[in-house]
Amino acid sequence: MTFRINKLAVFGVGLIGGSFAMALRQAGVVGEVVGVGRGRENLELALRLGVVDSIAEPEDAVRGADLVMLAVPVGQMGGVMARIAARLEAGAVVTDAGSTKQDVAEIAQTSLQSSLDCFVPGHPIAGAELSGVAAASADLFQGKQVVLTPCTQTSADALLRVRQAWQACGAQVAEMSPAEHDRVFAAVSHLPHLLAFALVDDIAGKANAGQLFGYAASGFRDFTRIAGSHPEMWRDICLANRVALLGELDAYRGQLERLRTALEQGDGAALERVFARASAARNAWAANKKNA
Amino acid sequence: MTFRINKLAVFGVGLIGGSFAMALRQAGVVGEVVGVGRGRENLELALRLGVVDSIAEPEDAVRGADLVMLAVPVGQMGGVMARIAARLEAGAVVTDAGSTKQDVAEIAQTSLQSSLDCFVPGHPIAGAELSGVAAASADLFQGKQVVLTPCTQTSADALLRVRQAWQACGAQVAEMSPAEHDRVFAAVSHLPHLLAFALVDDIAGKANAGQLFGYAASGFRDFTRIAGSHPEMWRDICLANRVALLGELDAYRGQLERLRTALEQGDGAALERVFARASAARNAWAANKKNA
Repeated sequence: MTFRINKLAVFGVGLIGGSFAMALRQAGVVGEVVGVGRGRENLELALRLGVVDSIAEPEDAVRGADLVMLAVPVGQMGGVMARIAARLEAGAVVTDAGSTKQDVAEIAQTSLQSSLDCFVPGHPIAGAELSGVAAASADLFQGKQVVLTPCTQTSADALLRVRQAWQACGAQVAEMSPAEHDRVFAAVSHLPHLLAFALVDDIAGKANAGQLFGYAASGFRDFTRIAGSHPEMWRDICLANRVALLGELDAYRGQLERLRTALEQGDGAALERVFARASAARNAWAANKKNA
Repeated sequence: MTFRINKLAVFGVGLIGGSFAMALRQAGVVGEVVGVGRGRENLELALRLGVVDSIAEPEDAVRGADLVMLAVPVGQMGGVMARIAARLEAGAVVTDAGSTKQDVAEIAQTSLQSSLDCFVPGHPIAGAELSGVAAASADLFQGKQVVLTPCTQTSADALLRVRQAWQACGAQVAEMSPAEHDRVFAAVSHLPHLLAFALVDDIAGKANAGQLFGYAASGFRDFTRIAGSHPEMWRDICLANRVALLGELDAYRGQLERLRTALEQGDGAALERVFARASAARNAWAANKKNA
């Protein structure tokens, strides 16, 4: 049986939602695409660009839809789910694209209720520096990773359908529990963002901030790029993943405490051990990643 | 009077020393270039590439030289200075390219002694990810900043000559005291390196390091790029700038402590304040920098 979506409903036709629709269309696996969203201007642009075929209210959008993508901020997820839960078609599959997964899984428990078996929480690992449908691209997920975090109630069929959709977008699909997902991304994404925000704010708050920024060079540029990210979005991610992030932050603070001691005592060997392990690990990682 | 170097002696013909010679040659302001160094293979490559005209021992290299560039690790600086101090020509000017300046200024006090007035400590702010003369380029310093940190004994004439040499390389020259230099770079360079090394080592030491690195994406890539830097070089920089770096590290640890409290208390407004200030400052900085 070939994979095919008759009608896709995309809630939030921005970078992620728009690219998802475009990629499925490019793969030739989707019939109709309907867009739902708060920003009228962005939705109309999506219509003009052919990313969506029509615009609808939530209740109408899910009529006849066999796949529903919720690419809205986590804060809006519960409201959207509650509005569509009773109107989903039999056999319809719902997925999302949020950066944290335990909170989305919990929201779904409350808001999707009897439709919970059709819900597959997901997280495409693709850049979020740009936003809006104008930045969307059919190739955004090509070769990128997507993590699906099924709940205990998620049906095997729903999981398979979402996996096939992402594979049609060119993505590599992995599975883990929502809790494991949140621990992994606390370490490799959420903590680095927090640290970069902290450094730039630290410098910006100094009396000689202008002088300091004037001498910041390429190392600073790369280190702090993620500090230019969306403040509200990252506030929400940090709060949503508070427990795992606190754990990572405390481990990191312990590491800084040890480095501080080594520095204060002039213990070059201890500093070099940390730097050498880090340098070797970073260079091995970069050698493995095509895009590093 | 036009700026002209009759004979340039470069100690350490690597990325920085080699690029300095090449840039001065391209500007047409240098007669002869002699190279000095520990790595025979690299020196012979410099000769074949025409970066230097000859290779010599320290004592012979400075004979007739009117400009001496010490582009060697800070650890070798004292030894080199002691070998050449008594052999410098009258009116010869000596400069260096080390990443820290108070330590170099102190080494010069001891090792250059009566020649101290001809010494101009300097720091070209140019990428150090590559090394060796093979990576050198006549354009490396084009549009880059160079900070000169004259000692109280440095003569105005020596300072002017070194400023002119860097300007001939296309660099923008600034001046500050060695202490101010070290405070500025502790904040915008040394601390970010320490933080990036700390994060990568932290992750590399976890039981599921392979899994974590497997999900690290572009934000992690940029944040940790400087963690791939040379461990011994950064050990030396951190130790040399220990006092200023400890000050910056402690300010940063205070910032993390406050963010931890906000996170633990679920204080979204406090998180957002820090993230928003950082994001605005980072984006303003990037908009001002052509290369960001």
